[in-house]
Amino acid sequence: MSVIWLNGAFLAADKPALLAHDRGLTLGDGLFETIAVKAGVPLRLDAHLKRLREGADFLGLPVPLDDTGLHDAILGLAGANGLTEAAVRLTLTAGPGPRGLPRPEVPAPTLMLAAGRIPAEAPPARLVIARTTCRNEKSPLSRLKTLNYLDSILARREATARGADDAILLNSQGRVAEATAANLFLSLDGHWVTPPVSDGALPGTMRAALVRNWRAQERPVSVEDLHRADDYVLTNALGIRKVLKILD
Amino acid sequence: MSVIWLNGAFLAADKPALLAHDRGLTLGDGLFETIAVKAGVPLRLDAHLKRLREGADFLGLPVPLDDTGLHDAILGLAGANGLTEAAVRLTLTAGPGPRGLPRPEVPAPTLMLAAGRIPAEAPPARLVIARTTCRNEKSPLSRLKTLNYLDSILARREATARGADDAILLNSQGRVAEATAANLFLSLDGHWVTPPVSDGALPGTMRAALVRNWRAQERPVSVEDLHRADDYVLTNALGIRKVLKILD
Repeated sequence: MSVIWLNGAFLAADKPALLAHDRGLTLGDGLFETIAVKAGVPLRLDAHLKRLREGADFLGLPVPLDDTGLHDAILGLAGANGLTEAAVRLTLTAGPGPRGLPRPEVPAPTLMLAAGRIPAEAPPARLVIARTTCRNEKSPLSRLKTLNYLDSILARREATARGADDAILLNSQGRVAEATAANLFLSLDGHWVTPPVSDGALPGTMRAALVRNWRAQERPVSVEDLHRADDYVLTNALGIRKVLKILD
Repeated sequence: MSVIWLNGAFLAADKPALLAHDRGLTLGDGLFETIAVKAGVPLRLDAHLKRLREGADFLGLPVPLDDTGLHDAILGLAGANGLTEAAVRLTLTAGPGPRGLPRPEVPAPTLMLAAGRIPAEAPPARLVIARTTCRNEKSPLSRLKTLNYLDSILARREATARGADDAILLNSQGRVAEATAANLFLSLDGHWVTPPVSDGALPGTMRAALVRNWRAQERPVSVEDLHRADDYVLTNALGIRKVLKILD
């Protein structure tokens, strides 16, 4: 039986854990991070916690633990589930609140961790360009890892319906932003490039590592660029996935 | 003690009700409706349930009860809370699922109802035009009442910070869409007008009633229109609120 960590306590994952009026559920008022743990070490943890804290600051949500506390909770939960390699998801919500948009004056945020296995390496992905929806690069939420994932869910469903594994989301101006749960890198004229955060790319932790390590260039990517690229990869916190092709 | 209704059962509202991996919480994968009950009658229920079912169809979510079952659950919950006038919120989520965007093959949706008092009539609202974020009219989600409410929360926080009661959201093209949790009607040249759904206005049930009853015109509204209008109202399922002025 797997266990979760909720506000400091371990609970069975198959038992109800959250109040029906938690704003994470009622309004998507919260953030998350997915952290890979390998050989007992949370990878790129500083980058994850920095993004979490910056997002929480922006949304006005208190983070109820310091970095050491979060580190220990992540490893404690992986251990409690008998995992030395794990994908640990950390979810922070604004906690319970009455009906309506304003938060309670005294916030009681919900901090919740869940651990699972790191998925096996996936085969090279077949991608489509999403037609159903687009990413709103004009919202600051495009730069935060929030609980508002329905546009990505729609695009992923479209990909499946079109026989692909994932979809590329364009932004409101028709430029390339990212995939549904991954950043996209393209090899163009012998260089790796990736769309800038200002075009709607989530500032992924793996993305930042590759921008450094591959000296990839952050620059606007058009659909034309997409079609003339020599190679592509999808990246997220759990790894790098090759791209087989972009379907019509 | 108030009670909620969850998948057919009444539960104390202060007891944990939801699994930590309910996709409503982890990904905002769901919809809601807020229904006014007056004198024991759910108002505009047909319109609410039609929007719920159309949204659920679009997202591929099954609705686990027929309309009679939903009607009875709404009134049953109001009654269980000792309310003959109530704001009943109905929330439908994709239910529990493993990490990642795809839903489980056999969906087990979560259907949850909560009831509260109808708020007292609010004083005329002071509005600002949101600068922080905008509504993505290019996403079909702008036409659905989804759990992804963070843009509205951001705009409402901005309104509060600027000394206003609510904010008007523009769309990606800079045209007026709606307020953070209400539709907006303007009196222009002696006629009521309201932004069209294609500009990012949620198709509100009260909005539809006023378009019929006031013969209001659905047409694009610019920021200039906003400033030259003679009068404004905000509308949502619970009522109509006057607007005092639009602050700079």
